[in-house]
Amino acid sequence: MKICLYDTTLRDGAQGPGISFTTEDKLRIIAALDDFGMHYIEAGNPGSNPKDAELFKKAANLKLKNAKLTAFGSTCRAGAAAPGDAALKKTLEAGTEIVTIFGKSGRLHVEKIIGATAAENLRIIYDSIKFISDSGKTVFFDAEHFFDGYKDDADYALSVLRTACSAGASAVILCDTNGGTLPDEIAEVTRRAAEYTALPLGIHCHDDGGLAAAGTIAAVKNGAVQVQGTVNGFGERCGTANLCVVVPNLQLKLGYECVPAENLKKLTQLARYAAEISNTAFNENAPYVGGHAFTHKAGMHIDAVNKLPSSFEHIPPSSVGNTRSTLVSEIAGRAALLNKMAQLAPNLTKDSREIKDALSLIKSYENDGYQFENAEGSLELLLLRSLGRRKMFFSVETFRLVLSEPNGGDKKAGALIKIKVDGIEEITAAEGDGPVNALDRALRKALTTFYPRLAEMKLIDFKVRVLDSGAATAAKVRVLIESSDGSRVWRTVGVSTDIIEASWNALLDSVEYKLSLDYGLFM
Amino acid sequence: MKICLYDTTLRDGAQGPGISFTTEDKLRIIAALDDFGMHYIEAGNPGSNPKDAELFKKAANLKLKNAKLTAFGSTCRAGAAAPGDAALKKTLEAGTEIVTIFGKSGRLHVEKIIGATAAENLRIIYDSIKFISDSGKTVFFDAEHFFDGYKDDADYALSVLRTACSAGASAVILCDTNGGTLPDEIAEVTRRAAEYTALPLGIHCHDDGGLAAAGTIAAVKNGAVQVQGTVNGFGERCGTANLCVVVPNLQLKLGYECVPAENLKKLTQLARYAAEISNTAFNENAPYVGGHAFTHKAGMHIDAVNKLPSSFEHIPPSSVGNTRSTLVSEIAGRAALLNKMAQLAPNLTKDSREIKDALSLIKSYENDGYQFENAEGSLELLLLRSLGRRKMFFSVETFRLVLSEPNGGDKKAGALIKIKVDGIEEITAAEGDGPVNALDRALRKALTTFYPRLAEMKLIDFKVRVLDSGAATAAKVRVLIESSDGSRVWRTVGVSTDIIEASWNALLDSVEYKLSLDYGLFM
Repeated sequence: MKICLYDTTLRDGAQGPGISFTTEDKLRIIAALDDFGMHYIEAGNPGSNPKDAELFKKAANLKLKNAKLTAFGSTCRAGAAAPGDAALKKTLEAGTEIVTIFGKSGRLHVEKIIGATAAENLRIIYDSIKFISDSGKTVFFDAEHFFDGYKDDADYALSVLRTACSAGASAVILCDTNGGTLPDEIAEVTRRAAEYTALPLGIHCHDDGGLAAAGTIAAVKNGAVQVQGTVNGFGERCGTANLCVVVPNLQLKLGYECVPAENLKKLTQLARYAAEISNTAFNENAPYVGGHAFTHKAGMHIDAVNKLPSSFEHIPPSSVGNTRSTLVSEIAGRAALLNKMAQLAPNLTKDSREIKDALSLIKSYENDGYQFENAEGSLELLLLRSLGRRKMFFSVETFRLVLSEPNGGDKKAGALIKIKVDGIEEITAAEGDGPVNALDRALRKALTTFYPRLAEMKLIDFKVRVLDSGAATAAKVRVLIESSDGSRVWRTVGVSTDIIEASWNALLDSVEYKLSLDYGLFM
Repeated sequence: MKICLYDTTLRDGAQGPGISFTTEDKLRIIAALDDFGMHYIEAGNPGSNPKDAELFKKAANLKLKNAKLTAFGSTCRAGAAAPGDAALKKTLEAGTEIVTIFGKSGRLHVEKIIGATAAENLRIIYDSIKFISDSGKTVFFDAEHFFDGYKDDADYALSVLRTACSAGASAVILCDTNGGTLPDEIAEVTRRAAEYTALPLGIHCHDDGGLAAAGTIAAVKNGAVQVQGTVNGFGERCGTANLCVVVPNLQLKLGYECVPAENLKKLTQLARYAAEISNTAFNENAPYVGGHAFTHKAGMHIDAVNKLPSSFEHIPPSSVGNTRSTLVSEIAGRAALLNKMAQLAPNLTKDSREIKDALSLIKSYENDGYQFENAEGSLELLLLRSLGRRKMFFSVETFRLVLSEPNGGDKKAGALIKIKVDGIEEITAAEGDGPVNALDRALRKALTTFYPRLAEMKLIDFKVRVLDSGAATAAKVRVLIESSDGSRVWRTVGVSTDIIEASWNALLDSVEYKLSLDYGLFM
C-alpha cells in the first residue's frame, strides 16, 4: 500500500530550539527532500513569517521531480470572515497548489484558548477551508489537538472532520499536538476516525512522550495514508515524528511503499545533510542513519555479525545508505583488529605475531586511559608501528611555552619550537589562544617548510575528557582531535595528567597521520 | 500494578560508543540510581572485565536503600561444564545476591553463531543456571534474540523458557537483541510467553528501530513485570530502552507503580547527572527530562499554555522534576533569582536594582559561555558582588608557569606565584602534574600563610567541556571545579579560550568561596 510523505522540516522543524534556516538553506533542503522522494514539502508559513513569502517566490523556479510544495497557515479569527483574513490571503499568494490550514478540534481548547463557542469554531473551520478551496487550491486540514479533543468529546472532534469534509478539504490530518498520546490510543482513535469519514487521513505526532514514531506507525496501521514528520525529528520541545525512523520502519518492516527502494538508500545522506545545514550536532546514535547504528564494539558481537548479520543488525545497513563498522576497544577481541589489520597487511592471520603485538600494545595504551574507538587515526598509526612500517618524519628537539598571567591584557600564549627533519633543524615560534593553540601553530609552521602539504591540514574539533576525575586538577585527561585536509577526516588521541601533554600527543599523531597518508604508508 | 526496574546503565550503557566509566564514576552512578529507586542495578560483567571485579568489591561497602546489585555474565561454553567455567566463577565472586546470565534462545543463532546443536544449547542454559542457583544465588536469565528466535521457531524459544524455569531461574528476560522488533510483535510474543510460563518475565529492548520505549511499554501491557533499560538510553549502536522515557510513561500515563511519586521528581536530575558523569552531551530535546521538553517558543503556544497547560504540555513538568520555560521567561527567571537573593538579603523585592543588576550580570556571563546551574558557588559569589558585599581577600601580583617539553623525563610543571594580602606580599612556588595542578598548589600554598583554614580545602572534581568545538584548539572551554572542606561541597566555573585561564578562574572562585563561607559573608 502506498503512503504519502508530508515533510515539515522547514516549518515545524524550524520551530525547534536553536534551528533557524536562511532562505538559501531552505532552498537547498527542498532540493534534497525532493530528491529523496517526499510527496509534499511544507515550506513555510507565509502569513506569519515574511521571509517565507520570499521563499515561495524563489521556490517557484525550482524544477521538482517528486514533491509538491505546500503553504501552511491558520484558520481565520473568531468573529471575522475568512475572505478578509490577511494571513489566509498570504497563503494563497504563496502560489502553491496545496494549502494546509490548521484549526482546533477539541471543545475544551476552543473554549479555553480561543474563547469562542464550539459552534463558532466549526464556522471558522468551514469558512476558512471553503475560502481557500474556492480559490482553486487543494486544502489539507490539520486538526490540532485531535486525540485529546476526541478523548474529551468524541462527537465534537468527529463533527470537525465532517465540517472539514463538507467545506471541501482533500485530507484531514489528525494531530497529537502536545505529543503525549500513547500509540495504542492513537491506533484506536485513528481507526474510529477512518470508519467515520471517507476523507484520506494523515497523522502528525510530536515526541513529548518519546513515542512519536510508534504513534505514527500505529496510525498508519489503522487507516492513515499521509505521514507528517521532519528529517531527524527536528521540531519544537522534543521534536516531531522523525521521518528517518518512520519511513524505513514502514517500508522495510511493514511493506508499505513510501519511496522507491533506491531512494531509501539516500536516507543516511539526507539526515546528515539536514543536520549540517541546520548546524546542529548530528546524533550518531540515531536509528538507521546514525554513524553508530551499525557499529559493533563487543568482540562477541563482531564475531556474531560476521557469522549471521541479522544477529546484531536488524536490517542490511546498505538499504538506508548506512555502513557497518567495528570499533576496537577493551571489550573487543582479536576479530575486529584482524579486520583493520587485513586492510594494511592482507596476509596476516588471527594468530600472527603482529596481531598479538598490536593487541598487547593496545591493551597497555588502554590501561593508560587511551581509547581508540573514536580515534582510528591513532589506532592505524599504532598498527603501522607494530607492522614495522612507521616512518619517522621528524623529531622534536625542544620547545618552550611562555604563559603570562591569565586575565592580563595580553592573552596570547607563546610557543617556541625546534624540530629536526633528516638532520636539518628548524626553529620557529607562534602565538595562540592558550598554550595548545600556540603549540599547534608553531609545530605546523615549522613542519610546513619540509612538508608543504601540511598547509592543507586543519584541526576541526577538539574534545577533552577528564578520566578518574576524583583526583581533581591532577587527574588524567584524554584529548581527542579531529583533523581534515579537505578530502579526508581523521581523529587522534592523547592521554596524560597534563592537558598540554595530552593535547601535544594527539597533535603529533594527527600530523603524523596526515604525512603517513600522503606517503602512502597505509596502502 | 508494580513494575520492577532493572537498570543496566553500567553494563549495557557502558557499551555505548564514547562511554567509558571509571570505577569511581560507577560508584557515584550506583548511588544516584539507588536514590532514584531502581530495584536492580546491573553493575558489570566481572567475568569479562577485571575492572568490574574491583568495582563489586568496592560496591559491597555501599549502603543501598532501594536497589540490589546484580552481576552479569554469559552461560558456559559449548561442550564444557558450568562448574569449571572461569567467567561464571567470577560472577559468583562478585558477591551479589542476584546473578544475571545470558544465553541464546533462537535456534538459528545457536547453530550459526555458537555452532552447537539446539539440544546442547538447552544443556548449556540448564547447567549454567543450575550451577549459579545451586551456589545460593537468585538467577535472572536473559533470553537473547528471543523475539527473532520465536518468529523463527516458536517451540524452540519456548523450550528455552521451560529449561530456564526447571533449572531454577527466578525470572526470564525477553531480549530484542538486534533492536528491530516492532512493538506489536513484542506485544504478541510477550503475551504468548506469559501464557506459557509462570515465571516472571522481563523485557530488554534495543533502539535500532527507534521504537525501544514503545516496545518495552507494549511488553509490560502484555505481561512483563520487569523492565530493563538505561538512563538516557545509553547503549551499543542506537542505545537501549531509555528508562527516562519508559518510567514516566508507565507511571504517569498507564498507572503502573515503578517508583514512589516523590522519586519520579528526581528523574530530570538523574538524567543530567548520568550524562555529566559519562561526559556525553545531554540531549536537551529529550522527552520528559530535556531542557527544551517544556520550553515554548511560539507566542501562540505561550498564550495557550498560560490558559490551558495541557494544550502544549502532556504532563505537569514538575512531576518529573523539570520546569516550564518560555522565551519571555525573564519574569520567571527573576522569581528564581529572587529566591536565591532572599537568602542573602531578605529585604529585596522583585524590582530592586540589585536584582536587575544581578540578572544582567548573569546574562552577560551566559553570553560568554558560562553556565551556573552546576556552579552555585560561582553564582553565589556573583550575587554577593552585585549586593556590594564582596571582600577582596587577596590579589595576585604575578605568576609564571614553566613547562618543559612533554614526554620528557621530568614531567612536573612549575608555577611561581606572588600574592598580596593587606599589603603584605608572599611569593612561593609549587610543582604539579601539569600547569593547572601546579597553579592550584602554588596558590593555596601562598594563601594558607594568611588563611590557615584553606588547608581544610580539597579539590574533588575537575571537568572540562569544549564549547563551540568547531574552532578546534582555539575553541572556548568551560571548566567546572568541585571543592570540599570536609563538611561542605561547592562548585565553581571558569570559561576561556585558554584552558589554563578557564581553570584559573574556576580555582580563584573556589578559594574565594571557601573564604567567604568562613567569614560569614553568605549569612
